[in-house]
Amino acid sequence: MQNWRCTVCGYIHVGDAPPDFCPECGAPAEFFEKVSEAPEEALPGPGRPVAAAPVTRPERKFAPLGPEEKRLAEPSMFKISYGLYIVGSQAGGRLNAQCANTVVQITSDPLRVAIGINKQNFTHGLISASGVFSVGVLGQDGHDLVHHFGYQSGHQVDKMQGMEYRLGRTGSPLVAGCLAYFEGEIIPEKCIDAGTHTLFVADVVSGEVLRDEEPMTYAYYRATRTRR
Amino acid sequence: MQNWRCTVCGYIHVGDAPPDFCPECGAPAEFFEKVSEAPEEALPGPGRPVAAAPVTRPERKFAPLGPEEKRLAEPSMFKISYGLYIVGSQAGGRLNAQCANTVVQITSDPLRVAIGINKQNFTHGLISASGVFSVGVLGQDGHDLVHHFGYQSGHQVDKMQGMEYRLGRTGSPLVAGCLAYFEGEIIPEKCIDAGTHTLFVADVVSGEVLRDEEPMTYAYYRATRTRR
Repeated sequence: MQNWRCTVCGYIHVGDAPPDFCPECGAPAEFFEKVSEAPEEALPGPGRPVAAAPVTRPERKFAPLGPEEKRLAEPSMFKISYGLYIVGSQAGGRLNAQCANTVVQITSDPLRVAIGINKQNFTHGLISASGVFSVGVLGQDGHDLVHHFGYQSGHQVDKMQGMEYRLGRTGSPLVAGCLAYFEGEIIPEKCIDAGTHTLFVADVVSGEVLRDEEPMTYAYYRATRTRR
Repeated sequence: MQNWRCTVCGYIHVGDAPPDFCPECGAPAEFFEKVSEAPEEALPGPGRPVAAAPVTRPERKFAPLGPEEKRLAEPSMFKISYGLYIVGSQAGGRLNAQCANTVVQITSDPLRVAIGINKQNFTHGLISASGVFSVGVLGQDGHDLVHHFGYQSGHQVDKMQGMEYRLGRTGSPLVAGCLAYFEGEIIPEKCIDAGTHTLFVADVVSGEVLRDEEPMTYAYYRATRTRR
């Protein structure tokens, strides 16, 4: 038995060979390197950090950013990379889907994700009521879907009308044309009220890849979008 | 006064002209389209969702995925797009930094981010103890930094030794060579214990862009990495 470290995310796999894919970040086996057979914690070195996992903090040290500080800091946020996704849900017989970019995996065991949704969006209410949602991963051919689901609101129109979709295990719509889908069931006590948005934390309850192509990133969309 | 909808994320801006950049997702002004002057909530349409913002759910409907279900679902996670970042912190006079890919903005007012960090990582302990961290956004020339900060652990070596960095406002290390930096102060009551990982939710307390170049994405890193 060896320890194998994922050279991208640091995940340690224990076994005779590295896993086919890193369960944390998806890196393929070639990204694993053999590390010491001793558990990391037992190795000599700079020592354990001054406090372990529990997250505590006696008091806030930093005041909220003033307008000028915020103006300076804000452009750094635009350097964060995102994909583009269609997030759907169903509640009370109503279906809707919207575009979203804040979609991340947060653990691999269990498969757990977080998605950020603006509270004013129609889909937010559906997710809150039903506790479930679907995520479709857009491919690089997904411009029409961004246009349809991102440019109008379920508050005003029935975006599902005339669109091709099927219902997933949770009853959420899986919009045709995405590369991959997964569905999540939220964990209410772990969801975060983030002011304008809710960060829904959810266990994955289904998933599949239909086309093994490159996902649409937000940067790709921005670079290739044409005005309609 | 008009309402302007960000055609990427749905954000509504009220004003005579669209904002230069969407405060939610960073889309430039050209991505905004004029929408009805009435507030979205007041417009006729499919109606309001069956429940509003509060996140509640009476009981779990879906059992945890079995091994075969998980095997089918897991590849869909690998279609989620990420950037690559250097996350640093300082506590008790100890400095460290590591690679991370789970970094997202969750609100723009206030500037608020979430980062996912494995509890076994040395940096996790530093963030938990100090309540603060730095994020450096890697550029497409960041391979050496990924190698240095991602291929070894602060449990074993002092990764900062011999590296060029300065300390940010929070005392966290800003590693030289990144495109952009920001620092966050965690909000303990909003951080999520996600099992193997903590999702640290934090208010941004500083930020700057040093080079306006394309960020390193995880996909780009994977496509361009060479074995050392």
